[in-house]
Amino acid sequence: MSRLLAFVSAAALLATPVMAQSVDRVAVNNIIDQGLNHSQVMQNAAYLTDRIGGRMTNSPQMRQAEQWAQAQFRSYGLSNVRAEGFEFGRGWSIVRASARMTAPRPLDLRVIPVAWTPSTNGTISAGVVVAPLSKVEDFDKWRGQLSGKIVMVSLPGTGSEPTEPAFRRLTAAELADRNAYVQPQYSPAAIQRQLETADFAAKLDAFLVEQGALAWVRISQRDGGLLHGTGYTYQVGATPKLAGLELAAEDYRRLARLALTDTPPTLELNSEVQFHDEDVNAYNILADIPGTARGTEYVMAGAHLDSWVASDGAVDNAAGSAVVMEAARILKTLGVQPKRTIRFALWNGEEQGILGSLAYVDQHLATRAPSNDPALANLPNNRTWRTRWPVQPRAGHKDLVAYFNLDNGSGKIRGINAEGNVAAAPIFQEWLAPFASMGATTVSLRPAGGTDHVYMQTVGIPGYQFIQDPLDYSSRLHHTSIDSYDHLKAEDLRQAAIILASFLLNAANRDAPLPRMPLPTEPTPTDPFEYRAD
Amino acid sequence: MSRLLAFVSAAALLATPVMAQSVDRVAVNNIIDQGLNHSQVMQNAAYLTDRIGGRMTNSPQMRQAEQWAQAQFRSYGLSNVRAEGFEFGRGWSIVRASARMTAPRPLDLRVIPVAWTPSTNGTISAGVVVAPLSKVEDFDKWRGQLSGKIVMVSLPGTGSEPTEPAFRRLTAAELADRNAYVQPQYSPAAIQRQLETADFAAKLDAFLVEQGALAWVRISQRDGGLLHGTGYTYQVGATPKLAGLELAAEDYRRLARLALTDTPPTLELNSEVQFHDEDVNAYNILADIPGTARGTEYVMAGAHLDSWVASDGAVDNAAGSAVVMEAARILKTLGVQPKRTIRFALWNGEEQGILGSLAYVDQHLATRAPSNDPALANLPNNRTWRTRWPVQPRAGHKDLVAYFNLDNGSGKIRGINAEGNVAAAPIFQEWLAPFASMGATTVSLRPAGGTDHVYMQTVGIPGYQFIQDPLDYSSRLHHTSIDSYDHLKAEDLRQAAIILASFLLNAANRDAPLPRMPLPTEPTPTDPFEYRAD
Repeated sequence: MSRLLAFVSAAALLATPVMAQSVDRVAVNNIIDQGLNHSQVMQNAAYLTDRIGGRMTNSPQMRQAEQWAQAQFRSYGLSNVRAEGFEFGRGWSIVRASARMTAPRPLDLRVIPVAWTPSTNGTISAGVVVAPLSKVEDFDKWRGQLSGKIVMVSLPGTGSEPTEPAFRRLTAAELADRNAYVQPQYSPAAIQRQLETADFAAKLDAFLVEQGALAWVRISQRDGGLLHGTGYTYQVGATPKLAGLELAAEDYRRLARLALTDTPPTLELNSEVQFHDEDVNAYNILADIPGTARGTEYVMAGAHLDSWVASDGAVDNAAGSAVVMEAARILKTLGVQPKRTIRFALWNGEEQGILGSLAYVDQHLATRAPSNDPALANLPNNRTWRTRWPVQPRAGHKDLVAYFNLDNGSGKIRGINAEGNVAAAPIFQEWLAPFASMGATTVSLRPAGGTDHVYMQTVGIPGYQFIQDPLDYSSRLHHTSIDSYDHLKAEDLRQAAIILASFLLNAANRDAPLPRMPLPTEPTPTDPFEYRAD
Repeated sequence: MSRLLAFVSAAALLATPVMAQSVDRVAVNNIIDQGLNHSQVMQNAAYLTDRIGGRMTNSPQMRQAEQWAQAQFRSYGLSNVRAEGFEFGRGWSIVRASARMTAPRPLDLRVIPVAWTPSTNGTISAGVVVAPLSKVEDFDKWRGQLSGKIVMVSLPGTGSEPTEPAFRRLTAAELADRNAYVQPQYSPAAIQRQLETADFAAKLDAFLVEQGALAWVRISQRDGGLLHGTGYTYQVGATPKLAGLELAAEDYRRLARLALTDTPPTLELNSEVQFHDEDVNAYNILADIPGTARGTEYVMAGAHLDSWVASDGAVDNAAGSAVVMEAARILKTLGVQPKRTIRFALWNGEEQGILGSLAYVDQHLATRAPSNDPALANLPNNRTWRTRWPVQPRAGHKDLVAYFNLDNGSGKIRGINAEGNVAAAPIFQEWLAPFASMGATTVSLRPAGGTDHVYMQTVGIPGYQFIQDPLDYSSRLHHTSIDSYDHLKAEDLRQAAIILASFLLNAANRDAPLPRMPLPTEPTPTDPFEYRAD
């Protein structure tokens, strides 16, 4: 490029009115300085993971995290720091667990109790039966063969062949592909089928008790020695009778193979767990930087503070929680005076069905009509939510102008999912512009699922999840026994906190609220002539 | 291609004299049928891994494997099945081990004793000191600070970012690249330096005892929750005083981080191990199919039967052992009457320095002059072997016409390393030809290192290691806590046994012995003007 052309080009860039209009770049400079040079994101992540550890909803560890997070928000000077309860059920926590093969040779096995199953009440010792049980129809085959046994309920399968890299960042091509629009699907018949399928776990427990089994073990859904953790029956009164334990895949399969030989294995199992029902409410943690000019309007960032059972809940989701806290610290430290209130949320009960953010939606933003199907009336709110029409906005519906969520691990932000909102997308593009050199460039219209912004979307609130580099989140960390601080990336988390803080400030100070989608009403089925094939 | 051209081409192929000359393809058909349709390779691998488990040299498990392997060879009808002893040292085995963080929160950790360290004599409980100790010069820094502590002797480091696939097969390009010749290097100064570096482990133990430490822990050299296992001081009389334990990287690093906070961790450690010195000899297992026409000449295949400490020793090296046994079974079942004796060897002490095959070399093939350096006279044979000249062939040197080794895991054979032997390479190319459709095509002149054929090469015996698909051998299985049967590949091992059996039969029946390299004499140094910089 000639010097003359370069000058023209730079002048053209400076003249571009769009960026100057909507982003206060001096504020961005301050955010970057605070977030890069004075970050506390890793200190907070370390406290959540190393010091507190795994944070199962309503466990003592999660209670500790709730208290600590509030204290941190208060120490940053945030306002209206509070714990907002919703009915959840019992907490559960592991005291210790062990599994040992005692015949045909002694060997300690890798084990974790299945969440919300009871203790073994001391060490039990028995032979095993490999009885793959995944549906009620399987019960007949094993009736009469399980008495006095430890029942191995999973099909053993075979070892994995991981031919993709475990750790990766998004390529330009993958980011471009993210923007390929995906049409929403709606199948009333499929929703109905799903609702009518009652939990198999309770039926399995009853069958095994009736058959006189001593305990059951299942295989980890990953190999490589990783434990994963399972179990969702946290409702009060729904306690299974039998202890269930998950074994590492290599350990489970060794037992299963030996069970086919003339030297079948015997096992010693010990699972010591505790239930916690002093308080059956779970608590979302909320904290504000009050707005100065727009009444009750607010913007919000959130991440779930609770974690799953097998390790310290680092990438899922101390990472997102620490980033939300760090964005709060950055903005408060800079003394911003936003037009709209900026609210920070650390959700609870995400791992049991996105319960905390749904409770917030239901309490503050909108509810849904009661179910008109009596068979579904007693199911939990989250299971029937999407089937109940119409959406009934509450008074606060109009106040929340944007919600930003983080729950994809430790990878830096590469962009944002605009959830089909073609009016918001170009605004996000402007907000991302200062961060192109940090790798964040992509606005995708595609929706993201599976975490705390989704119930906002179901009631017409603009809730968004950032696009993050996947790193090794899905390949080896998500819910596994190695989801600990080691696999957090300091530079990525700093970048994410900076961008989140900037987005919040932009959204809080923008003259007009972020454009919304229309209030959702019941969609037409994708296939209006679908038959239910049961 | 026209029909006429196809006919001409097929006729030309049939007329190719090379293959017809040196490979009995009817015998290959029989070997393939037996090896594919009646394989016992996985049954034997399962017995070694699931039933017997890890097979540390001179442990009770390895003794069991030695007995079982001999019984298997006898059951196949092999002759002269025998255990040939060499002086090794003490066996060592784990009874049980555990590690638990007791403050600032309770958490069970993943742990394995360091091999040949003693028991803790019950559970010990203490605070930790992170004192990275990797050389004698580090001792001064920590003097006076270790009394009553559990000493964490490793630098913690950070989590890995595995950007390469864990599981892979060799591409055509990689196979072609294998043939790029690598010139041998010879540096007398480097060898001398290595020999003079005495074992650090003994000095560390003495220092920690002197300082009043209670035990030491080190970090696994892999992350992802995998344990690796370390420890090599198996000589009688060289027992360390202090128990050493290896922790999973994630567990070690969590402790190291907490040690920097105001809530430093305390640990409970228990290591219960046994030493076995009823018989300080280790035993190689040998078995023959006797030759019919060439006197004392023989060909041999081998793999090491011993394994390392952290799991069942599946890819390292039940895989190779089961393939050697299967090749024996196939050939014996087919009733071959080879001209030369075919010998099968299951080596011992490979993990401690390729000791078993070296003992065989030293006893039967060639020895080396004694060391003329009195400082080195008391070092073990394997440590000084390469420094001692000349090679002194024994009477049996001329009898062993080819040795084939397997020790690269479970991947199928893709070719063979010809170890620079340009006279043998075209013969191997002919022998591989029937197996091109099974993926075995490549003859590489490059030498392979690190396993039981290398001491054959040092005395001029044509010892070869096959090229195998790497699969996940190096990335996650080698010496780790998941090296169990799950990660063995039945189809690959069948193929390997077929090719090994075929190579053995070809080598046994070839009119002329395989061409040899000249008897090694002391090489000229790569850099004849190298100074020792100490």
